[in-house]
Amino acid sequence: MITLVLGGVRSGKSRFAEQEADRWLADQPKGKRLYIATAQVYEEEMRGRIEKHKNRRGADWRTIEEPLYLTKVLKEETGKGTFILVDCLTLWLTNLLLKDAKIDAAMNDLCAFLKKAEGEIVLVSNEVGHGIVPENKLAREFCDIQGLANQHLAETADRVVLITAGIPLVLKG
Amino acid sequence: MITLVLGGVRSGKSRFAEQEADRWLADQPKGKRLYIATAQVYEEEMRGRIEKHKNRRGADWRTIEEPLYLTKVLKEETGKGTFILVDCLTLWLTNLLLKDAKIDAAMNDLCAFLKKAEGEIVLVSNEVGHGIVPENKLAREFCDIQGLANQHLAETADRVVLITAGIPLVLKG
Amino acid sequence: MITLVLGGVRSGKSRFAEQEADRWLADQPKGKRLYIATAQVYEEEMRGRIEKHKNRRGADWRTIEEPLYLTKVLKEETGKGTFILVDCLTLWLTNLLLKDAKIDAAMNDLCAFLKKAEGEIVLVSNEVGHGIVPENKLAREFCDIQGLANQHLAETADRVVLITAGIPLVLKG
Repeated sequence: MITLVLGGVRSGKSRFAEQEADRWLADQPKGKRLYIATAQVYEEEMRGRIEKHKNRRGADWRTIEEPLYLTKVLKEETGKGTFILVDCLTLWLTNLLLKDAKIDAAMNDLCAFLKKAEGEIVLVSNEVGHGIVPENKLAREFCDIQGLANQHLAETADRVVLITAGIPLVLKG
Repeated sequence: MITLVLGGVRSGKSRFAEQEADRWLADQPKGKRLYIATAQVYEEEMRGRIEKHKNRRGADWRTIEEPLYLTKVLKEETGKGTFILVDCLTLWLTNLLLKDAKIDAAMNDLCAFLKKAEGEIVLVSNEVGHGIVPENKLAREFCDIQGLANQHLAETADRVVLITAGIPLVLKG
Repeated sequence: MITLVLGGVRSGKSRFAEQEADRWLADQPKGKRLYIATAQVYEEEMRGRIEKHKNRRGADWRTIEEPLYLTKVLKEETGKGTFILVDCLTLWLTNLLLKDAKIDAAMNDLCAFLKKAEGEIVLVSNEVGHGIVPENKLAREFCDIQGLANQHLAETADRVVLITAGIPLVLKG
């Protein structure tokens, strides 16, 4: 099952996704858990945030850091009794944008894969388009990219959950 | 019926509104569709966005571009077997603000008309107040204007739908 | 009962909270109402906003202005046949941040008190993390603080209500 978890900054998206993994594991005593981190560690601020998340998840998670080739990693790892948490799509899209990569093609690849994937995948993504339209052109462009990506993912996913202050609201599925 | 469609940037608001028009048309073989565009084309970025929307809607829509006198156009066109899509209130309010027009009066006029209008009208509006309060005074002022306008419209409308990643959530009606 | 009211700028949070007080009062003919304002009046813009709210509430409300020691005031005033409206947590957190106060400790104190409080308290708080991540470091830090605080409060509260364009959506309770 493919689940898309949406929410704002610090809304509890990652924690919700990790709880989904806990629930899944309770029924799968031999199940494995994989965390795909898309963050690129440019600076201390980000490093601190990553370490905090890592400590919360605990040692029984495997972690792969992949800022760009997300679909490739998903193809290699999906199924095989593994629960996959992708955290997060927003940083992945940011990385692609900063590399001038073809985002439409990358999103099409990802969604085509998810459409037929068999396995448990939870993807975390941010809502970024509910503020004042930014003055910065790149920020405006990113709002569009993120909004369209979330629409595409929501259409592809079996389940879409919006998190507000840690509370899930099922929008689909 | 008056429907207010709310959502963030690229949340799928316009597409949802167009699907409403499709559903309506299926029962109204002689129905006509009117798109009221409030955008002012200052620059290429906006022109591209408008053309994309236009192509998606197809040729059987009539389009009126009206950046300021929205209520006047609605008075002339409402009813008469016509489905009206107003896209969007946010640009209309922006245009009024930039012209130093009396926004309260304009909103009162619009809502007074909608209250007694007979016909099918869908109005699209943005949620802009869920980010950090902007440093820019005009942006802050606009947050207030948009928020109050959405409250006023939501109270007036028969139905209010919030779109998240393309998925509608009925808040009222 | 502890109620957390969430929403964006000018979403109708305060008005909803005041209506909750009206409903409560209808059943409590001897009930009193207390408004705890956390705003600090730096400038005319804020003063105007505060006066508008005050006039809307009417004379039968008592008002306490407390920008920092919110939990202390709550301890003194909770219960005693009084409905308490705290407006708003976002300004309180901002005041603490600008004073370099220990926000984690202050939030823990507040939530520990609310957990066992007997009385009617409605707390209003903003959603601020649904826009583009701000370039300003302090704004980014505040997004984190507000998001975590909302999660903590939502977990503590008996009821959580999200307001969109004046329309309440019960997320919990």
